[in-house]
Amino acid sequence: MSCDVGLYGLAVMGQNFALNMASHGFRVCVGNRSPSKVELALSRAREEGDLPLYGSSDVEDFVRQLIKPRRVIILVQAGRPVDDTIALLTRYMEAGDVIIDGGNEWFQNTLRRSRELEGKGLHFVGMGISGGEEGARNGPCLMPGCTRAAYDIVEPILSKCAARVNDGPCSGYVGPVGSGNYVKMVHNGIEYGDMQLIGEVYDIMRTVLGLSNDEMAIIFDGWNGSELESYLIEITSKILSKRDDLTGEGHVVDYVLDKTGMKGTGRWTIQEAAERSVAAPTMAASLDARYISARKDERVRASTILRGPEMTSAEIPVHRGQMLDDLKSALYAAKVCSYAQGLGIIKSCSEDMNWNVSLSECARLWKGGCIIRAALLQKIQDALARDPKLPNLLLDPVIAAEMNERAAAWRRVIVVAIGYGVSTPALSGSLNYFDSYRRASLPANLTQAQRDFFGGHTYERTDRDGVFHTAWTDAHKSIGDITERKAGEI
Amino acid sequence: MSCDVGLYGLAVMGQNFALNMASHGFRVCVGNRSPSKVELALSRAREEGDLPLYGSSDVEDFVRQLIKPRRVIILVQAGRPVDDTIALLTRYMEAGDVIIDGGNEWFQNTLRRSRELEGKGLHFVGMGISGGEEGARNGPCLMPGCTRAAYDIVEPILSKCAARVNDGPCSGYVGPVGSGNYVKMVHNGIEYGDMQLIGEVYDIMRTVLGLSNDEMAIIFDGWNGSELESYLIEITSKILSKRDDLTGEGHVVDYVLDKTGMKGTGRWTIQEAAERSVAAPTMAASLDARYISARKDERVRASTILRGPEMTSAEIPVHRGQMLDDLKSALYAAKVCSYAQGLGIIKSCSEDMNWNVSLSECARLWKGGCIIRAALLQKIQDALARDPKLPNLLLDPVIAAEMNERAAAWRRVIVVAIGYGVSTPALSGSLNYFDSYRRASLPANLTQAQRDFFGGHTYERTDRDGVFHTAWTDAHKSIGDITERKAGEI
Repeated sequence: MSCDVGLYGLAVMGQNFALNMASHGFRVCVGNRSPSKVELALSRAREEGDLPLYGSSDVEDFVRQLIKPRRVIILVQAGRPVDDTIALLTRYMEAGDVIIDGGNEWFQNTLRRSRELEGKGLHFVGMGISGGEEGARNGPCLMPGCTRAAYDIVEPILSKCAARVNDGPCSGYVGPVGSGNYVKMVHNGIEYGDMQLIGEVYDIMRTVLGLSNDEMAIIFDGWNGSELESYLIEITSKILSKRDDLTGEGHVVDYVLDKTGMKGTGRWTIQEAAERSVAAPTMAASLDARYISARKDERVRASTILRGPEMTSAEIPVHRGQMLDDLKSALYAAKVCSYAQGLGIIKSCSEDMNWNVSLSECARLWKGGCIIRAALLQKIQDALARDPKLPNLLLDPVIAAEMNERAAAWRRVIVVAIGYGVSTPALSGSLNYFDSYRRASLPANLTQAQRDFFGGHTYERTDRDGVFHTAWTDAHKSIGDITERKAGEI
Repeated sequence: MSCDVGLYGLAVMGQNFALNMASHGFRVCVGNRSPSKVELALSRAREEGDLPLYGSSDVEDFVRQLIKPRRVIILVQAGRPVDDTIALLTRYMEAGDVIIDGGNEWFQNTLRRSRELEGKGLHFVGMGISGGEEGARNGPCLMPGCTRAAYDIVEPILSKCAARVNDGPCSGYVGPVGSGNYVKMVHNGIEYGDMQLIGEVYDIMRTVLGLSNDEMAIIFDGWNGSELESYLIEITSKILSKRDDLTGEGHVVDYVLDKTGMKGTGRWTIQEAAERSVAAPTMAASLDARYISARKDERVRASTILRGPEMTSAEIPVHRGQMLDDLKSALYAAKVCSYAQGLGIIKSCSEDMNWNVSLSECARLWKGGCIIRAALLQKIQDALARDPKLPNLLLDPVIAAEMNERAAAWRRVIVVAIGYGVSTPALSGSLNYFDSYRRASLPANLTQAQRDFFGGHTYERTDRDGVFHTAWTDAHKSIGDITERKAGEI
């Protein structure tokens, strides 16, 4: 058998992506550590109409079936299993072949592996894949980071199997090796932010407005036909309308325990934001919300001793129609801030690493196939077309006008939530981001003065150039002249 | 010369700590790469009344002057310089000797060095030092992490030279090697949070209430005699009253540029919070505020196109006296949340690393000498005495009652700030933390449902045990039975 591509690792994503490639006419050889998964994939390929899927659980045999230059996509757990799989495969692969890791891998691991494989003349691609299992099967968003040479070898397959939108496949060259994982990581951070923002809006709807699941499902469905159009809004509507089969009563969502799990990418995004000195409060709030949600026992205990405002709509009158309009505006504005943060993280790392990642291309790739696909991405693409070097999305005049129009509604939402004691960490985090970013003068002057007071850190002035230190008290003078010492050593 | 202790690295902290030890009667030998610093230290020791300070810029000579077991404190820049210094010193040091690194070092580096030195029979101590240069000279807070054996060798010096408060010296055994650096790192994260909270209160005072620097100085001075008593409140008052000598007009603080610098420890605290799955929104907000402050050019540009609410006190009436009372309550409540977060990070890492760090001891150490010394720490110590296993500070009944009393004022402050467009990321971050933590049910049920919808992540239920997956749509069914596959592999 001469196969066009190999896929190693047949968990959910691997199974579905293999079938995706085969259904596009590529002859796919699948491999897996345990042979039963290979059998399962082969039987699914038969069921779906004799798709050109072949398989072997023997690694040597698996590699031998591939045409040269060989292309092998790995879909195993990030970390050690990727190293193990590469070690297995490279026993039989040759210079010029390409290994594509499609997992959610920490980009520094990808950089290390690329260096290691370079010595053997093998190409290595770190490729982000988004879309869940449905996307993997029917068209995901693909974010490959690699050399141009490696990209040319894999491009025909990726372009065919990715989701498609108005301006092409949701796959394209992201940048050098590592950048694909990075962009996928930030994609996930944005996804966390979007989910938390929707969760907060849902919480206000049910807690403050007292809406039923069915009412909310209709509202989210309506929003999906607006500027908020997005996959996550769409599925939120579907989730809210889903009845509970297990009990036969009520909606599933009301039976789901409010303890949220998470994987590494969201966490990494926040850690990288800090590493790159980029503010990312919306995404950070979504991670924090998950951490707090996981401490259910503590929360139940806290709920008995920490008091909320116990407001009623009699005390804080809320007009339902107005509030729903406000929520829509708030969600949109907060979402824009979150995307601004995410793009800022990519921009900053790309500059540090000399990756030259196009933010516009990221927005384009994300328009289809992936979890954060949304109408907003087209506007972001447009903004970046107007100014590819835009320092922050909020500085685009069209986006800025949208933010200005929605700011009052956004403020009203958070004020009501505070009054009712409903936490809105992501909606608030975004508003604080907006209110900090748009101010020419922040209270950071006091912070700098404090740092100079206790640590002799010096400061700059608004009225003249240079670096200054003040002897704030007599005690400062007795300890010595910091300014003199500064130049050399702190 | 037989010296009791060596100090290598004579930048600001080193100079002052050497003089501190000498003024307590310890014979101190100082060393430094460049001899001029040694001369400077010796001349300062003479000026201060012939303190027993000796010195050598020759490393072998420096080490030879020390009595055995030798104790050498290193105060050089964190990272590579510490490794270089250790390499220099260990040429002449012997088994049983102790090296104490007093820098702001990443705790994993300390763990590595400890392992390396163990092979040579040398003790290694990673010791956090807080208090700035004034503290270093007159009594800092010392946070040593090491073996008990190493601690016994250095304890007599540390206990004498640290600050003293009601219940002893602000130095004590923190835990195994690494824990001292970690506790100091979190101390700094808390410090960042405190500074940002004060900055936000200052911003509301000047922007919303239109108070003058002198008026604010009096208010902060008054607060320093209240439950808010702390070093940072004290110096804020002093800073606000300081006239500008350079121009002869106005106050220094108004000339300080609002661009804030930072060092590694604040950033690490946030990254570690994420690593340990601990929510730390107040500290994260303070970091974000610094990142945003640094982008002054962008902010100036943004201020011309992004609009604030342009509120006036006519539109949102604010009563000055009430608002000041509210600000005081808000600052206190928000500060409590920040300390709860910081202690949560230490607790979590201590559990992961089996350090057995006493949070009560951390609070005790921080009561004097360091930048975050505050009256609140006594209350924290008391809370932890009532329940050493307290999962979160907010669960202590006394603290909880304080929070409940202040919550309404806190909400009023943030509502006003939102109305005026004054960003309060840390005050809001704390309130959202409070409002999330005290709720038995969060909207995380929707988040879990979304994760199950697009990623087959499964969920738990409120009405029965087990792990569940819902086929939310027909498309889910066609892709395969996730539930079956879950058990083994996702």
